[in-house]
Amino acid sequence: MNKRSKQLMQWMRKENIDAVLCQSRANVFYFSGFDTDPHERLVAVMLFPNGEPLFICPNMEVNQVEAVYQEGEIIGYSDTEDPWAKLQQKLSVRGTTIRTLAVEQDISWRRVKMLQSLYPTITLVAADEPILSQRVIKTAEELAMLKEAARLADFGVQAGVDALMEGISEMEVVAKIEYELKKKGVRETAFSTMVLFGEKAGDPHGTPGSRQLKTGDAVLFDLGVVWQGYCSDITRTVFYDSISKNQQEVYETVLQAQQAAIQACRPGQPASGLDRIARHWITKYGYGEYFPHRIGHGLGIEVHEYPSLTETNEELLKPGMTFTIEPGIYIPDQIGVRIEDDVLITSSGCETLTSFPREITIVPKRSQ
Amino acid sequence: MNKRSKQLMQWMRKENIDAVLCQSRANVFYFSGFDTDPHERLVAVMLFPNGEPLFICPNMEVNQVEAVYQEGEIIGYSDTEDPWAKLQQKLSVRGTTIRTLAVEQDISWRRVKMLQSLYPTITLVAADEPILSQRVIKTAEELAMLKEAARLADFGVQAGVDALMEGISEMEVVAKIEYELKKKGVRETAFSTMVLFGEKAGDPHGTPGSRQLKTGDAVLFDLGVVWQGYCSDITRTVFYDSISKNQQEVYETVLQAQQAAIQACRPGQPASGLDRIARHWITKYGYGEYFPHRIGHGLGIEVHEYPSLTETNEELLKPGMTFTIEPGIYIPDQIGVRIEDDVLITSSGCETLTSFPREITIVPKRSQ
Repeated sequence: MNKRSKQLMQWMRKENIDAVLCQSRANVFYFSGFDTDPHERLVAVMLFPNGEPLFICPNMEVNQVEAVYQEGEIIGYSDTEDPWAKLQQKLSVRGTTIRTLAVEQDISWRRVKMLQSLYPTITLVAADEPILSQRVIKTAEELAMLKEAARLADFGVQAGVDALMEGISEMEVVAKIEYELKKKGVRETAFSTMVLFGEKAGDPHGTPGSRQLKTGDAVLFDLGVVWQGYCSDITRTVFYDSISKNQQEVYETVLQAQQAAIQACRPGQPASGLDRIARHWITKYGYGEYFPHRIGHGLGIEVHEYPSLTETNEELLKPGMTFTIEPGIYIPDQIGVRIEDDVLITSSGCETLTSFPREITIVPKRSQ
Repeated sequence: MNKRSKQLMQWMRKENIDAVLCQSRANVFYFSGFDTDPHERLVAVMLFPNGEPLFICPNMEVNQVEAVYQEGEIIGYSDTEDPWAKLQQKLSVRGTTIRTLAVEQDISWRRVKMLQSLYPTITLVAADEPILSQRVIKTAEELAMLKEAARLADFGVQAGVDALMEGISEMEVVAKIEYELKKKGVRETAFSTMVLFGEKAGDPHGTPGSRQLKTGDAVLFDLGVVWQGYCSDITRTVFYDSISKNQQEVYETVLQAQQAAIQACRPGQPASGLDRIARHWITKYGYGEYFPHRIGHGLGIEVHEYPSLTETNEELLKPGMTFTIEPGIYIPDQIGVRIEDDVLITSSGCETLTSFPREITIVPKRSQ
C-alpha cells in the first residue's frame, strides 16, 4: 500500500469512516497513478479503513489501469452495464458494510442520489479536507514533475517570443508555441494558451484572436503544460519594438508587487499576506482598481487547486506548498500586464520554479 | 427573450418551478451565448417562469458577458465575495421567493449543500430533461457551427495524413495537426488529439507518444475541434506504405459496420438499432469481442452529450439530432481500426457532416 492510501486509511479509522469514494480525475490520479478524462463515465477508486481498495473503470481502460496500479482490485464495466450496481455487488460479495461514506464535495448531485438510492440509510461526509491536506504538501517526486512542467512553461514563453514578428496574429503565435511544446512531448497544455496583444490584454480574461502585432504593443503570454500529471502556469509580458513611459510604469509596478509578494513567501506567512503586499504596491502607484483578482492559486495535479490565495484567506503557508504569484494591472482598451511565477515554499523561504527573465524585454522588430 | 429561454420558462410555469439554475459550462453557453472555463468559480444563469433572468460571474468577466448577453441582469463578484450570498441578496431585493428550484444533476454536492443552507426548505428537482430535450434538436444556426467544426475536423485529418513520413513520432504528428488547426483559427480542440501507430491503436484508449512510424503501420487519427462553441469528432484509419491482408479485412469489416449503421440513421429508428446493426456485422466476421464500446454519442456543445447510443437505449431518433457513429476493432498489441463520422438526422434520413474519404488509403512512403 502506498503512503498516500495509508494516510487516508488512518484518517478513516480515526473518524469511523467505512469507505472513501474518489471519482474526480485529480484524486483518482493521486491515489492510483492512473490519469484519464473519464467524460461522463465513472472512473473511481474506493478506499477502506482496512483491506484492499477497489478501482472501477470502463472495460476499455482495465489494461491501462493494471499497468500502473497494483494495490487494489480492478473492476471493469461495459457501456451497457451499470457501474454502480457492479460496485454494490462487489461490496456485497466482500461482505463490506457501508454506513458512513466519505465523498468529494465536487461529486455530482446525480451520483449522490445514486449512492443514496443504493444505500438508503447511508451517511455522506466530505472527504476533501484529509485529501487536500495531503495533496497540498508536495513530495520530492511530485516536485520533480512540477519543476519539469515549469521548465517547459519557460520554454513555451521563449517559443512565443521567438515567434513575434510584424503582422503575426495572436492565434498564429499560440499555434507556434503549442507546436514547439508538443514536439517536446507535451501532450496537454494546462489550459488554453493565451497570447494577447496591446489593448487586448486590458481584459484579464481576454481570448486570442486575429489581432495583428504592431510596433509598441505589449504582448502578454499566459500558458502552462501538464507534465506527467502535474501542471505549470506562467505569465510574462514583453514589448514589441518599443516601450512607452506609461507601459514601463505599469510593468515596473506589477514587477515590484510580484517580487514583494514572492519575497514574503515563507512558512508561517498567512496566504492573505501575499495578496495584501502585492495590492499595497499596486494601490500605492494608483492602479489599485485595475487589479481585480486574487494574487494566486494552488498548483499541482490541477492548475487551480487548494489553496486559493486571496486577501481573506488566513491559512498559513507550509513547506512543500506550491502555488502561483500573479499580480496584474488591466486598463480596459489600453494595456494589460501580468507577471506570474510558480512558487514552492521551502523550510526557510521559497523557491521560484519558473524562471523566464522578468526584466523588461523589448523584442526587436522582425519581418516575415 | 430568446426562444431557448422562453421554452424553458414555459416548462417552469407548467411544472410550478420557481427558478432554474444553470451552472454547467455547456448550459450557461446554451442559454447566454457566453462561453468560459469557470474553473472553480461560479458562472451561472438563473431563469424564472416570468421576468428577467440573472447572470452571475466574476467581476473580471462582466464586460465579456455584457457583450454577448442582453436578456438578463448581470451580477459580478470579486474573489473575496461570496457569489451565493450575492445571489440570495439580489433575489431578496427582487422579492423572488424560491420554493422549488430546478438544477442540473451534474451540479456538485458542494453547491447543493450551499443552496440547501441558504434556503433550508427548498425542494430541488432535476432540470436536465427539459434542457437536454431542447439541446438535442439542433437549430439551423447550430448546424452551421457543427458543419464548420466537421469541415475543420476533415482538414485536421488531412493535415495528419500530410505529416506522415518515415520515422516521425505520434506526438510530432499531433503537433503538426494542431498547428495547422490553430492557424485556421481553432482555439480549442474538442479533446486531446489522438494519433496512434500500428499496435498502439490496439488499445481503444491508447495515448500518443514517441512510437515512430514504419512501413506497414495502420495509423489511427481521432480528433475534433470546438468551433464557436460546437464540437466535431472524427476518426480515420489509414495505412502507411502498404497494407496486409489482415489489416484490409479488419478495415473492411469496420467500414461495412459503420456504413450499415449510418444507412439505418433515420427518424423513428431506436438508438439501440444502430449499435446492434454495427455489432451484427463485426460479430459476423468474427471480431465481436474486439468491439468493446458503444456505437456513438450525442455531439453538440459538448463532445459527448445526450443521447448515448448504446445497445440498450431504446429512445427514437428525431430530426435535428447530431451524434457520432464510430465502430472499431481493437486487437491488443496488434491493430486498431476505427471509422467515425458525425451524423445529422434529417426529416427523411441522415446527412454525414464529416466527409474525409473512407476508402482504404495507403499513404506513400516519404522520407524527411
